[in-house]
Amino acid sequence: MSGDKDSAQQRDDYRRIKWNGWGSRGRAMVLDPNDPFVVIHPTGKKIRGLTDFIAKEISGSTGGERVKLTPSPSVSLEEALQKLQPPVVNDAFVSAFGSELRSEQLHQDGESRLIHVVGKNYRDLWRMRRGDIARAPDAIAVPESHDDCVKLVALADKHNVVLIPFGGGTNVTGGVEASPFETRRMIVSVDMRRMGKMLSIDKESRIATFECGVLGPDLDEQLGRHGFMLGHDPDSYIHSTLGGWIAARGSGAYSNKYGDIENMVLSMKVATPKGVIETPLASRQCGPDMSGLFVGSEGIFGIITEATVKIEPVPPVRHYEGWLFPSFEEGYAAFYKVVKQDLAPVCMRLYDDDETRMSFALKTDAPKIQDLAGKGIKQYIKLVKGFDLDKVCLCIVGFEGTPYNVAHERAGVTKIFHAANAFRVGTGAGDNWQEKKYDLPYVRDFALGHGYWADVFETTAFYGQGVGLWRAVKQAVRDVWKAEGKQGWIG
Amino acid sequence: MSGDKDSAQQRDDYRRIKWNGWGSRGRAMVLDPNDPFVVIHPTGKKIRGLTDFIAKEISGSTGGERVKLTPSPSVSLEEALQKLQPPVVNDAFVSAFGSELRSEQLHQDGESRLIHVVGKNYRDLWRMRRGDIARAPDAIAVPESHDDCVKLVALADKHNVVLIPFGGGTNVTGGVEASPFETRRMIVSVDMRRMGKMLSIDKESRIATFECGVLGPDLDEQLGRHGFMLGHDPDSYIHSTLGGWIAARGSGAYSNKYGDIENMVLSMKVATPKGVIETPLASRQCGPDMSGLFVGSEGIFGIITEATVKIEPVPPVRHYEGWLFPSFEEGYAAFYKVVKQDLAPVCMRLYDDDETRMSFALKTDAPKIQDLAGKGIKQYIKLVKGFDLDKVCLCIVGFEGTPYNVAHERAGVTKIFHAANAFRVGTGAGDNWQEKKYDLPYVRDFALGHGYWADVFETTAFYGQGVGLWRAVKQAVRDVWKAEGKQGWIG
Repeated sequence: MSGDKDSAQQRDDYRRIKWNGWGSRGRAMVLDPNDPFVVIHPTGKKIRGLTDFIAKEISGSTGGERVKLTPSPSVSLEEALQKLQPPVVNDAFVSAFGSELRSEQLHQDGESRLIHVVGKNYRDLWRMRRGDIARAPDAIAVPESHDDCVKLVALADKHNVVLIPFGGGTNVTGGVEASPFETRRMIVSVDMRRMGKMLSIDKESRIATFECGVLGPDLDEQLGRHGFMLGHDPDSYIHSTLGGWIAARGSGAYSNKYGDIENMVLSMKVATPKGVIETPLASRQCGPDMSGLFVGSEGIFGIITEATVKIEPVPPVRHYEGWLFPSFEEGYAAFYKVVKQDLAPVCMRLYDDDETRMSFALKTDAPKIQDLAGKGIKQYIKLVKGFDLDKVCLCIVGFEGTPYNVAHERAGVTKIFHAANAFRVGTGAGDNWQEKKYDLPYVRDFALGHGYWADVFETTAFYGQGVGLWRAVKQAVRDVWKAEGKQGWIG
Repeated sequence: MSGDKDSAQQRDDYRRIKWNGWGSRGRAMVLDPNDPFVVIHPTGKKIRGLTDFIAKEISGSTGGERVKLTPSPSVSLEEALQKLQPPVVNDAFVSAFGSELRSEQLHQDGESRLIHVVGKNYRDLWRMRRGDIARAPDAIAVPESHDDCVKLVALADKHNVVLIPFGGGTNVTGGVEASPFETRRMIVSVDMRRMGKMLSIDKESRIATFECGVLGPDLDEQLGRHGFMLGHDPDSYIHSTLGGWIAARGSGAYSNKYGDIENMVLSMKVATPKGVIETPLASRQCGPDMSGLFVGSEGIFGIITEATVKIEPVPPVRHYEGWLFPSFEEGYAAFYKVVKQDLAPVCMRLYDDDETRMSFALKTDAPKIQDLAGKGIKQYIKLVKGFDLDKVCLCIVGFEGTPYNVAHERAGVTKIFHAANAFRVGTGAGDNWQEKKYDLPYVRDFALGHGYWADVFETTAFYGQGVGLWRAVKQAVRDVWKAEGKQGWIG
């Protein structure tokens, strides 16, 4: 880790994060002040299809004059700070903390507290933006090592203080939020982001040990210097930590090849009130395995301080491409054939017709030539392939690895997709997905900022139930809207 | 499950198992009564190299006259039965058992007890053969369903009776043996082998639910009718159960492709004194995962009654072949290259020089032409390839799957092995390994029956430590022999 990075961490990363929205301050998707029908992407690129998409698909506008979006602003930082309840301070704990750690590692200012009140779920941000501030932590501890965490947990146990481990704060299940009924005990949010170091790497055995407060990009940057990566890529990648991934039982865009977080973590250290638990490194140990208790625990049993993970060499080939399927059902069936043929692309994503339309609506400005090509493709798949354009489904498929393996996997998948009458739109769509895969929370915040509720929900299903589940969920949501007289879009 | 099979199970499979050795009664490796230098394989084939191998490598004979083995017989069944301690009988439990289940499901005869005293570790059998009978269970319960197990656990809890779940009884860690200090409470061994049914199969989602007393071959036979298999193949496969594999955190010969048992089991039902625990079927559930507590538990938390497992289509291609490497180190390095190239044969086994010699010594009679071919190979690798015949290491590599994938994997592995100067001996060696992979316990019993201690120990190591560990363990064992003035063979 470079000296610069260390001092950046000393300044505490969390202060750069929005208290009422996704990501770092100053990075957002906003309306173009000069054109009410243009949305500016965080990169500065222009999105011209989104306001019309919202008007038509969400508000149910049936055409005629274009509909302008109405801003629905958040309360200000000052207003929010005034709504913070006065802190509960356990003087004995604070004093002991100053002796065992350093007083500077306990932050009691309002802004620090505000940033740690909730996670980044839609409901979390909706409350914050309205000034509906839940039970805030009374202080933020910023441990700098496993030993700091051990001391902190012991102190909290001794002084009856509540600890809430806090990684990147992108939690969506209420895992970083205090109980509203906890009015008497002091609550301390334990912000892990000063613990971002790689402690060791064994390149031959392909394992590395990290402090668990390391953020996604910092983790892969440290591994990258040795030619390795982790291969975990959740939507929250940029703003979430290794410890958070473990505590939330995380999955990522590339789990199909590299595994889910519980497959990556070989061993971890957990500071609990009963002492430190270190799970064994070898997978074939005798006796029960405690790992499953901490993976998915949301931090309730202790602070996950360090973890040893399996690491992957940075693949020499990375190839992502887009395909169009005539329908969701046909795409789903083709995916199943890929699985049956035991081919394993690093990722394989199918967007249904509704989501495909949103994906097109989110397109940023591209050179004219690409626009023309896009129109040509539409004509081709309609006229030559006979696709119903309203049912077209976008698919993104990615391959990573050695040239030898990628060529094999690609050829196998291509054969199956062609047999399913799919149309390859090329690597542009794949690269576009790669570029925008972390954007969805900004779209959600943009919607929130204009009076729309927006959220993502996810689940897992067995192959045999997939299509039925997809249909039933969409229908159930639409039935509720209909019964309640609401408009909405689900894809 | 066919009617025949059901009635066979009603007669209780366990009665066919040896009380003092591996496998079914009547199946063993024995000295040829007509030739003291010939060993008869359980199949009836003759092994001509084993007695000389034992004389030279284990007893340290330096040549001259051939050494005959001296039998070291076991005590008889009658003698062993007389050494059984009188049973502790909890009358209230036995009576309640008869009401809640059927009296016929509780076996209190001496032979049933004797069969359930210990597992099949070397130490277990050595004690049994000497008539050193450990604390035997006082009765054997044979539940026929999950509900039977739930009732049984509740009864045992109520009447303070000890239960020991017993699958196939091939345990090697003392997991089926009672504590010698448990002299007052009644101990009941719960033999699961009447619970061998497949309860459901979802071919599209590739999952199936089984009762956990199902033995390996019965499990795969039931799946095989639908074109599927589990892919779990431990050395104990023929005599061990699904529940036992889970409770022992089992690995198998094909885990490289199909995973270890904890990767195969998606969900399980466990009858515990506090009630039934059913782990969720979906891998991405919220919150901690209890599975790890039961996998590897050796049955201490309850009876694993049913499990839902992922299943694999029976592969259209199965290809196994043998290779010879000039040394263990070179073979190990080649294996590492295979891993680095992200190729995944279904199995890849490397026998060191000592084990390769034992493997040759265990060869059964083959047609003359094969013998000649074998001699030709030896000459070739010595003269043309320049191998030191004392250091040659046998490798078995297997590929399973679609023709498309197997061709790809084989070509990749072949290229790496050739670059490592290895010599392909062909599919005969692979088929031979397939045929004999369950034999080692019979060799162990044969050794025990002639005054030799023999056992297998296994471990896992990271790639970076493999060669060093291999050397250090062999040296450490030999150092002990030397210090103690003993002879032995380790490979």
